[in-house]
Amino acid sequence: MTSLDQTHDAALRSWVKGADGHPDFPIQNLPLGVFSPADGVMRPGIAIGDQILDLTALLGTGLLQGEEALAAEAAGGTALNSLLALGAGPRRALRARLSELLRAGSPERDRVAPLLHDAATCTLHLPAAIGDYTDFYVGIHHAENIGKQFRPDNPLLPNYKHVPIGYHGRASSIRPSGTPVRRPRGQSKAPDAAEPSFGPSRRLDLELELGVWIGPGNELGTPIPIGVAPAHIAGYCLLNDWSARDIQAWEYQPLGPFLAKNFASTISPWIVTPEALAPFRIAQAARPAGDPTPLPYLLDESDQSGGAFDLRLDVFLVTPRLREAGHPPHRISASNTRHMYWTMAQMVAHHTSGGCNLQPGDLLGTGTISGPERDACGSLVEATLGGKEPIRLASGEERRFLEDGDEIILRARGIREGFATIGFGECRAVILGAVA
Amino acid sequence: MTSLDQTHDAALRSWVKGADGHPDFPIQNLPLGVFSPADGVMRPGIAIGDQILDLTALLGTGLLQGEEALAAEAAGGTALNSLLALGAGPRRALRARLSELLRAGSPERDRVAPLLHDAATCTLHLPAAIGDYTDFYVGIHHAENIGKQFRPDNPLLPNYKHVPIGYHGRASSIRPSGTPVRRPRGQSKAPDAAEPSFGPSRRLDLELELGVWIGPGNELGTPIPIGVAPAHIAGYCLLNDWSARDIQAWEYQPLGPFLAKNFASTISPWIVTPEALAPFRIAQAARPAGDPTPLPYLLDESDQSGGAFDLRLDVFLVTPRLREAGHPPHRISASNTRHMYWTMAQMVAHHTSGGCNLQPGDLLGTGTISGPERDACGSLVEATLGGKEPIRLASGEERRFLEDGDEIILRARGIREGFATIGFGECRAVILGAVA
Repeated sequence: MTSLDQTHDAALRSWVKGADGHPDFPIQNLPLGVFSPADGVMRPGIAIGDQILDLTALLGTGLLQGEEALAAEAAGGTALNSLLALGAGPRRALRARLSELLRAGSPERDRVAPLLHDAATCTLHLPAAIGDYTDFYVGIHHAENIGKQFRPDNPLLPNYKHVPIGYHGRASSIRPSGTPVRRPRGQSKAPDAAEPSFGPSRRLDLELELGVWIGPGNELGTPIPIGVAPAHIAGYCLLNDWSARDIQAWEYQPLGPFLAKNFASTISPWIVTPEALAPFRIAQAARPAGDPTPLPYLLDESDQSGGAFDLRLDVFLVTPRLREAGHPPHRISASNTRHMYWTMAQMVAHHTSGGCNLQPGDLLGTGTISGPERDACGSLVEATLGGKEPIRLASGEERRFLEDGDEIILRARGIREGFATIGFGECRAVILGAVA
Repeated sequence: MTSLDQTHDAALRSWVKGADGHPDFPIQNLPLGVFSPADGVMRPGIAIGDQILDLTALLGTGLLQGEEALAAEAAGGTALNSLLALGAGPRRALRARLSELLRAGSPERDRVAPLLHDAATCTLHLPAAIGDYTDFYVGIHHAENIGKQFRPDNPLLPNYKHVPIGYHGRASSIRPSGTPVRRPRGQSKAPDAAEPSFGPSRRLDLELELGVWIGPGNELGTPIPIGVAPAHIAGYCLLNDWSARDIQAWEYQPLGPFLAKNFASTISPWIVTPEALAPFRIAQAARPAGDPTPLPYLLDESDQSGGAFDLRLDVFLVTPRLREAGHPPHRISASNTRHMYWTMAQMVAHHTSGGCNLQPGDLLGTGTISGPERDACGSLVEATLGGKEPIRLASGEERRFLEDGDEIILRARGIREGFATIGFGECRAVILGAVA
């Protein structure tokens, strides 16, 4: 795992106004992304406070050398895939140099300050061209909650504690935070209906997930051993894997979810690096004593002792009426990544164990991360028990599933005493009505 | 559907030696691909007999004009995605011009002949960069055969005759014909075992499928109506969706196949165009009277009357001992695309019905296309009844599943009286032993 160094020091201050104490992007974070300012030209950037540092312009100043410059050069253009492919060395060198340049008292302040853009005036894009997208199912409370709705006495299937269950998703329909999501139409069949029908989904749901950005990756036929899996993870994001539960229930046998999921997925646009999250590493927490020991290809001492994460996760709902009445967003859920039954490294090792190749910019989702309590559910189908017990809002409204105009906001933050709080930024989207 | 024109005339002859009567690539076919001759430089090409015409070099001669030239320009480089994106107009114009240039008596013969390469000296590549890969399940006899092994009394699930069942697959591990396939290792659990174990798959299988290359595609949120779906299909290939049945049985609940399929898929490298296959269109054959009428979004008169295909499909097995003893390849199966329960247009319309976007170069698989008879099964798990009844070979060997060194060859041909036979070329690969 990444060791802690000076870039993590909670006492570090930045000369960038608003960066110190920023809930997401203090100088200890420095996430990577692709943005376009007012001129519309896409370029790589670094979030710092409410500003974005233009990485290509920074390279042009000559302030980056060696591996730092290599990283910034690779980031050039409209996607960060080539930077992700370089692996940890250049990424860490760039982080160390950015930490120096943005630090209070930096002698280069006057040369760097003109390269900042007010984030509020910029458009954020997908940070990489996503080759393949895979979604896992490592939130054990989610698996249990969903399983209970189908099999009350035996919610977890026999393979769950042996196999990091995953399946392939759709890469083309992944969009950055802020892109509205069109309610899908599709086939469904009510239990009491004689025949299926086609129309707008009536059980539109969210899924609270983390995304994993793949770094160097592997050649076809050459698995990534779990001991080196962390070297192939370039960073993390939030992921909302929107789901149409009525379409899903009718289509998913025997080959899994398809149209119920592929109409849209939303991610937070910043790649939060493994370095930034190093203070929030914890031992594997979600595997109780007595559970089966993972097979050797999934077992690594360092991963067991420090491969999990303690990150607070929140889901907020804003309805048009809540917004009009001036109510704050309604928190549906407060969860935590410690509820993942498998680590990110186990996901990577399993995915490649049969020889499947991962490529720079591929995205892995964790699956929905729910906690054990009702107010820690990462989806509405869990929080409302399949729509039976609606959520009540301050506006007097109820919600079983999402309605047109509703907005969902996901947040993730590392919070630990003695360290700066590190956030992912927001992952948000509004639901638009189905096409007529 | 594509109308028949002079390019389909069975009486057409080519000046290219060996093209007339070629079982795959007569002048009536003219499939598109990407190849590299001895110099190793990748470029677009057209198969004609046992030769490949260099399309970039042809463009350089000035013999292409207007839309023909537009198509050849778009094909430039190492992938045909931009050509596929252009749609049918330029593709048809190019076909018509190529048919003139390669025809016996063409006044341009002396200018074109130097641009031919002996296919035996060339390497063939994937014809396009595959963004997303989706696999369907439209072979109804396959679905019944597999279903019978799990549910003897009720082999087809209730959704099968309403929903063109599909799921997302892995794009990164698709390779062109000739690339060896490494036997995957993975988790499996024998029915009588107390715990799962990890090791080389012992039930390695093939799947006989057709692939569909997507042309222009659609924007996210804008479904492709079935009536215009054919305009978004740029061509077809053979597809072997290799499957590890022991891994599949243990991992596939509840989200579908994952590592059982993503270690490799093999495709034939030529894009056989809708124009070339126009003579082999037939009415929907696999949907017996009395079956449910498709929902309106899947129903189109022209698709019902001429949207299916009559293409002969063959699966051959070559073992090292068969080869050494000089035996011909053993035919495991003879099937036909008329056993598809859903058409290619229905696959496209369904895939996009919820708004999912298809992009130029995306690949759709049909799923395994088996006929109703034992000798028409598109996979070994069907042909051997799950390994219970082995196939006997002329070498005295038996096969339940594939062994190291075995080679599988898929073939597809359109054969119709009064028309030239059109083939797809071969889709073949040898099985290599698992990594130690």
